[in-house]
Amino acid sequence: MSKWVYSFGQSLTEGSANDRNLLGGKGANLAEMSSIGLPVPPGFTLSTEVCTWFYDNGRSYPSELKDQVNAAIARLEQETGMGFANPENPLLLSVRSGARASMPGMMDTVLNLGLNRATAEGLAKRSGEKRFAWDSFRRFIQMYSDVVMDVDHGLFEDALEDMKAVRGYVEDTDLSGDDFETLVEQYLAIVQEESGEAFPEDPHEQLWGAIGAVFGSWMNARAMTYRRLNNIPAEWGTAVNIQAMVFGNMGDDCATGVAFTRNPSTGANVFYGEFLINAQGEDVVAGIRTPRNLTKREREESGSDQLSMEEAMPEVFTQLCDVRQKLETHYRDMQDIEFTIQQDKLYMLQTRSGKRTAEAALRMAVEMAEEGLITRDEAILRVNASSLDQLLHPTLDPKADKTMFLRGLPASPGAASGKVVLTADKAEEMALAGHNVILARVETSPEDIHGMHAATGILTARGGMTSHAAVVARGMGRPCVCGAGEMIVDAEEGVIKVGPHKIKEGDIITLDGGVGEVYLGEVATIQPQLSGVFGTLIGWADEVRRMKIRANAETPLDAKMALDFGAEGIGLSRTEHMFFDSDRIVAMREMIIANDTEGRQKALDKLLPMQRQDFIALFEIMKGLPVTIRLLDPPLHEFLPHHHDDMAEVAKQSGVSLEEVRDRSAKLRELNPMLGHRGCRLAITYPEICAMQARAIFEAATHITKETGEKVDVEVMIPLAATRRELEICRKIIDDTAEIVKTETGQPLTYMVGTMVELPRSSLIADDLAVEAEFFSFGTNDLTQTALGISRDDAGQFLREYADAGIYPRDPFITIDVEGVGALVQMGCDKGRQQRPGIKLGVCGEHGGDPDSVDFFEECGLDYVSCSPYRVPVARLAAAQATIRRR
Amino acid sequence: MSKWVYSFGQSLTEGSANDRNLLGGKGANLAEMSSIGLPVPPGFTLSTEVCTWFYDNGRSYPSELKDQVNAAIARLEQETGMGFANPENPLLLSVRSGARASMPGMMDTVLNLGLNRATAEGLAKRSGEKRFAWDSFRRFIQMYSDVVMDVDHGLFEDALEDMKAVRGYVEDTDLSGDDFETLVEQYLAIVQEESGEAFPEDPHEQLWGAIGAVFGSWMNARAMTYRRLNNIPAEWGTAVNIQAMVFGNMGDDCATGVAFTRNPSTGANVFYGEFLINAQGEDVVAGIRTPRNLTKREREESGSDQLSMEEAMPEVFTQLCDVRQKLETHYRDMQDIEFTIQQDKLYMLQTRSGKRTAEAALRMAVEMAEEGLITRDEAILRVNASSLDQLLHPTLDPKADKTMFLRGLPASPGAASGKVVLTADKAEEMALAGHNVILARVETSPEDIHGMHAATGILTARGGMTSHAAVVARGMGRPCVCGAGEMIVDAEEGVIKVGPHKIKEGDIITLDGGVGEVYLGEVATIQPQLSGVFGTLIGWADEVRRMKIRANAETPLDAKMALDFGAEGIGLSRTEHMFFDSDRIVAMREMIIANDTEGRQKALDKLLPMQRQDFIALFEIMKGLPVTIRLLDPPLHEFLPHHHDDMAEVAKQSGVSLEEVRDRSAKLRELNPMLGHRGCRLAITYPEICAMQARAIFEAATHITKETGEKVDVEVMIPLAATRRELEICRKIIDDTAEIVKTETGQPLTYMVGTMVELPRSSLIADDLAVEAEFFSFGTNDLTQTALGISRDDAGQFLREYADAGIYPRDPFITIDVEGVGALVQMGCDKGRQQRPGIKLGVCGEHGGDPDSVDFFEECGLDYVSCSPYRVPVARLAAAQATIRRR
Repeated sequence: MSKWVYSFGQSLTEGSANDRNLLGGKGANLAEMSSIGLPVPPGFTLSTEVCTWFYDNGRSYPSELKDQVNAAIARLEQETGMGFANPENPLLLSVRSGARASMPGMMDTVLNLGLNRATAEGLAKRSGEKRFAWDSFRRFIQMYSDVVMDVDHGLFEDALEDMKAVRGYVEDTDLSGDDFETLVEQYLAIVQEESGEAFPEDPHEQLWGAIGAVFGSWMNARAMTYRRLNNIPAEWGTAVNIQAMVFGNMGDDCATGVAFTRNPSTGANVFYGEFLINAQGEDVVAGIRTPRNLTKREREESGSDQLSMEEAMPEVFTQLCDVRQKLETHYRDMQDIEFTIQQDKLYMLQTRSGKRTAEAALRMAVEMAEEGLITRDEAILRVNASSLDQLLHPTLDPKADKTMFLRGLPASPGAASGKVVLTADKAEEMALAGHNVILARVETSPEDIHGMHAATGILTARGGMTSHAAVVARGMGRPCVCGAGEMIVDAEEGVIKVGPHKIKEGDIITLDGGVGEVYLGEVATIQPQLSGVFGTLIGWADEVRRMKIRANAETPLDAKMALDFGAEGIGLSRTEHMFFDSDRIVAMREMIIANDTEGRQKALDKLLPMQRQDFIALFEIMKGLPVTIRLLDPPLHEFLPHHHDDMAEVAKQSGVSLEEVRDRSAKLRELNPMLGHRGCRLAITYPEICAMQARAIFEAATHITKETGEKVDVEVMIPLAATRRELEICRKIIDDTAEIVKTETGQPLTYMVGTMVELPRSSLIADDLAVEAEFFSFGTNDLTQTALGISRDDAGQFLREYADAGIYPRDPFITIDVEGVGALVQMGCDKGRQQRPGIKLGVCGEHGGDPDSVDFFEECGLDYVSCSPYRVPVARLAAAQATIRRR
Repeated sequence: MSKWVYSFGQSLTEGSANDRNLLGGKGANLAEMSSIGLPVPPGFTLSTEVCTWFYDNGRSYPSELKDQVNAAIARLEQETGMGFANPENPLLLSVRSGARASMPGMMDTVLNLGLNRATAEGLAKRSGEKRFAWDSFRRFIQMYSDVVMDVDHGLFEDALEDMKAVRGYVEDTDLSGDDFETLVEQYLAIVQEESGEAFPEDPHEQLWGAIGAVFGSWMNARAMTYRRLNNIPAEWGTAVNIQAMVFGNMGDDCATGVAFTRNPSTGANVFYGEFLINAQGEDVVAGIRTPRNLTKREREESGSDQLSMEEAMPEVFTQLCDVRQKLETHYRDMQDIEFTIQQDKLYMLQTRSGKRTAEAALRMAVEMAEEGLITRDEAILRVNASSLDQLLHPTLDPKADKTMFLRGLPASPGAASGKVVLTADKAEEMALAGHNVILARVETSPEDIHGMHAATGILTARGGMTSHAAVVARGMGRPCVCGAGEMIVDAEEGVIKVGPHKIKEGDIITLDGGVGEVYLGEVATIQPQLSGVFGTLIGWADEVRRMKIRANAETPLDAKMALDFGAEGIGLSRTEHMFFDSDRIVAMREMIIANDTEGRQKALDKLLPMQRQDFIALFEIMKGLPVTIRLLDPPLHEFLPHHHDDMAEVAKQSGVSLEEVRDRSAKLRELNPMLGHRGCRLAITYPEICAMQARAIFEAATHITKETGEKVDVEVMIPLAATRRELEICRKIIDDTAEIVKTETGQPLTYMVGTMVELPRSSLIADDLAVEAEFFSFGTNDLTQTALGISRDDAGQFLREYADAGIYPRDPFITIDVEGVGALVQMGCDKGRQQRPGIKLGVCGEHGGDPDSVDFFEECGLDYVSCSPYRVPVARLAAAQATIRRR
């Protein structure tokens, strides 16, 4: 015979905290609290298997269930000495949902079950509190009718208000026992009228009604949405917890409250909570009465004139403090508890791991480890690595009023307010004039970089989490919302249109890049405060992690920031980013527009000293740490002059006609630049570009060695190679250039040459690539684009619907698609090592800063991950967590 | 001791035709002819291993070589009864290259080696022909000095011309023996003056000089280029053949000639060749004297008054006919032979498999099989499948004068002349007015289809072998040259510019899509003539091939043509192509522009009857053969209205404002449409499109079944799926629609649902896809684009340089990249079968019509390939060849 029902209480407990999958979180914890001797009202749990059976069998129950429930009730009666449906000494029950993962408020609950006219009478007699008894009954009718019989609860509230009005009462507390008895009769009539059926008098009928309603609520719209948003599978099901009621509202020696064993918002090791005397649990939550503080200290801090529990009920408070101690020692984590005091006796109704802010999680983890409550490894695992991001950027003041008018992707965290501007130039101009500006664009391109730098926040209509705007914004630490498809940017009119809203250039908006929302006007923000515990935890993480963490950086500013954040090298220096300064872009364009090698060489000669200086600056900052420099990668058309003035300037500088510049620009335009003439294809067709860059790198390295005597650890990275031959050709240019520089300078020179594995073919033939490549850096952004056939710039059109439909459960540009892209990374690693044992392996896509992806990279055994500077702390922690998980 | 030298001749032959790798083609065939008793002047071959050794060791020789050469010479002296360097009876030698693969004229040759003043004198005495002897010497000096000593041969020709002028001679034949002796002294003086060294008198020194020059010529620029173009590895090396000279120029009982054992241009089984009396081999080739016909019949047909060999030398001719017979029987193939007659004695100097036209190859293969010379399987393998294309399209008249001014990719075979037009509308208009037109565009888009149809040829500046223009042109059987990057299309001026050429709209040009060349003016073309042997061979092929051949077709015209060409079904019907007719495009645009489901549904309701009619027409033609219909695939922006008028029309028809049309169009624009909102992503975001198409398909199928009682074999193909979930969602729409149609019509309905595997991820998780998909069709075009990260539309910018650098030896859009894309296809097959044994597997990319790719698909065990109708015969033959090769 299958077992469907599990008891808990002093006389029998059949589960423990480990049975969360079977009993749900609440049921497992009630059982656990029972077994460690805490005062839990006895009860029993209908397991999640009942829920599964229920839905697999057209919402019916297993045949054994009824007997098992009856047996469990009999045990309850025995333990409490009361009787279910017994008017003499009625046992009342609560019926609550309890899923494996917490789904607060999503499913239904029924309290005070077992009341009818007879048992209410009995309860009144037994407790001596008529008012309490009939108030409980009317609460039960309201709740049950709402949940089980689908009667609008507003009707009951109206009846209550009517009575108060007729009788001239102000507060609910003005109602007497008789009033409530009258009200109960009105309630019962409402039920009859609205539902067409009588309210069930039989407590057993009530019980099965409530059980059915709770199981049914697993599939209500709210619950389904919540599950989808939180990745909770429908197959898990919910348990139903049936427990003897205890009452916090039987008089002034009764109370109910909720508490956290530590402060959930700061993490401080102080007891923190609220309670209400003579009240039921939902009164605390409902906010009709203002709850009191738990501790004296809290009361004093809040300036309340209501006695705290510590003061009002010192003995029970001491008991509660013991419970707090016991729970933390037992669960080794901060607990969120619910309790009720019935006639000076404490009952524990719930305990669970408490939700906490990022800041609190960090502090608690560190302090608990320092207290010896948990190990350092556990402390490391306790902190959500992604949440560190939150600690490094301003956030919206949660108390501030705000009007959201636009939603996009949370592309780069942090909150910012500023005046809307529509062009990069305008952004720079306004920023120079001292304004905070939000740069709003359809999409950004490398030409907008100065404007993005000047802006306090960036907003785009197009593009996904790894679009240009997103990547650059994260790199700069600027808040960014992108792919806000509802926004129409009308540059001519100088407005952005979002539905009925027209926002003019100069109007202030606020954006929260952590959630992807945009608000009208200015919304107050809070600056992040990094405490010492941050450093402590990250320090512990550094001690355990196996993978190195590098940063993607090219400017001295970025490189310095990367070092400050703890980067152990540069994993990706995108040389093209160095060419967008206004003094360089013209030379760059001359180079692109040149029709022949000679013209190109002339322009490259202008670029060489600038590029060399870039690398000198970078090497100086990185002081011998490894620096991976990627050769020119983007399609040349990204640098093309678009406007007449730009074209004229290029024509003038390079001494060719405007027509020629225009023709050549048109020729370089591409339909799918992502799959176009870029990466090492540029080095193959224009070897002189590769040679110039190699020369700049090696001259810079020998310069540093000469000046400081220190070696530079440089890794030259060839992008987008999909064949061994491409590497051979590029390598030869690089090696030949190195020889020339060695001869010219008489300085020694060591370097590695490797490639960025960013095309599916590259992974498929990685063994062949490894013949030439001394290292691989997986470019998982591009690998995702090509393996999945999704352009990060265009994905905004459908990726949200894809997430909604459960096609890609996570945005594959944020968290690596393990089955597809991950398989290619794994294949690349395996084949690379097979050809060249010990080949250096890293990743430099945006995934390098995503904790779940970092976990996968640990699985692959990569040597390092590289991410944007702001993400380095996240990666350091995530890498440590991944190491620990694999111990 | 290593063996470097291999003898051939009557007294000793050490090799055979099988030793081609070691002895080169010429050497192996000389050995083979010797062994079967043909009259071959004796000689020996320095193997290709000597060449490899030569280059591996700084152009030096293995130490054993000299002795082996001397021994071989001694044997020659013995067999011929003459002596090398012996003035009494001088043995003269020819020194010729001979690589594994024929490289005609690419490397050096030295004839008459062994002559100096003394041996020339001796030769004169012995032969009684002073003139012959000194003429031979001066020819030798000229050739040797050119090849070995790098003396410009023009200087010798000048000296000869000077002498003729001084002495008043007209023809070379006017020179006497004394004249030649004088000329020899002048030649020797020229050598001394030009090279600074004396011409070597010692025959052994001459020999080693010639050997070194021949080996050296393996690395000359010409040879290297030829090898690159013909995929011949440098490591193969060349052999050197050294052979006793025989002379066709010792008098009127001497002659020399070349012949083919069958007619190489028609394939007719007649002896075919040319010869010259009293001449050396190069005289036939050089064209100074007009060669005579070999046979009487040829002479009569050509109207020549010079006696044929059959008439002039009937006895030797009969011997030659015997040789012809012997060679064909022995080699079982048409042979290209060189012979010399010295004093009425026939010598064979060379035999090799003869080059032939496509037409001749076909005819010979069939006739040889019918004669019993070869098997049918051999006949099938003898014909280059690609060459069938040539037989189905007009070709340029090889005799016509032509001026090439532009080169691009050979995108679709055939030759065509016409007036240049720059727009599709203009093409249609001019075609209606009765002109042949060539549509010249930067690139084409689906909106140009009517113009492409109206044109006799298509020319584009951009795009690779699978660009829109190329694919559509091949589908329509229109000649096409694309990616002609030198062309600038200036629509405003109404001209195309190519370097100095400006070609106005209306000017006539001619293009040859088989080679990718474009010519000024009109060039005469030849219409293809399909003979009965074509049908015979293809019939034999059909009997042996394992894979089915389907066609990519959507219009009734294409479908009928596909059937005519022998297609066994439709493997890809691109439904989007059905929407470009002018009466449909507006409804299509309404659908795209619609902002909500309702608006979209309204437009879809207009499209449904049209689409249903399309499918009815297709099913009617295909009469129960399988038809794969792909749901809407391209990015919607391909259909977007670009011009004001188009937008206004859409606005009017759909009742929205022009501004809204413009905004929505801007929103749908994509940066990388290939990786954008397309394929099944459209069905996911707009399920109503998928439902409309499914309904049209199923209503058409039930209509046919009702009308004819016959079942329709329809396969619904979901494009671009990379996850199982996408298939689940689309499948549900399709299946639900099928149920509705079944209910509505009361007709039975069977169909399959499958997917196009065209993204790397799809192959990687093909087992997962196969849970939902009943068939896979590999979309190798897109798979190539994504696996290699190359957009077929943009590849023109670098793919040529990539081929030149040996990166992708073949255009991966023409012949499948086996290591990369092929690995994904193989993986997809394996994983698909693993999940669903017997899953139907096909390919519908352009590779389906490429013989080498078809061979690979046979290897994968695909069930069918599908290609454009014109390519169906190619695929039928290629599939048969692949089957035979795997027996």
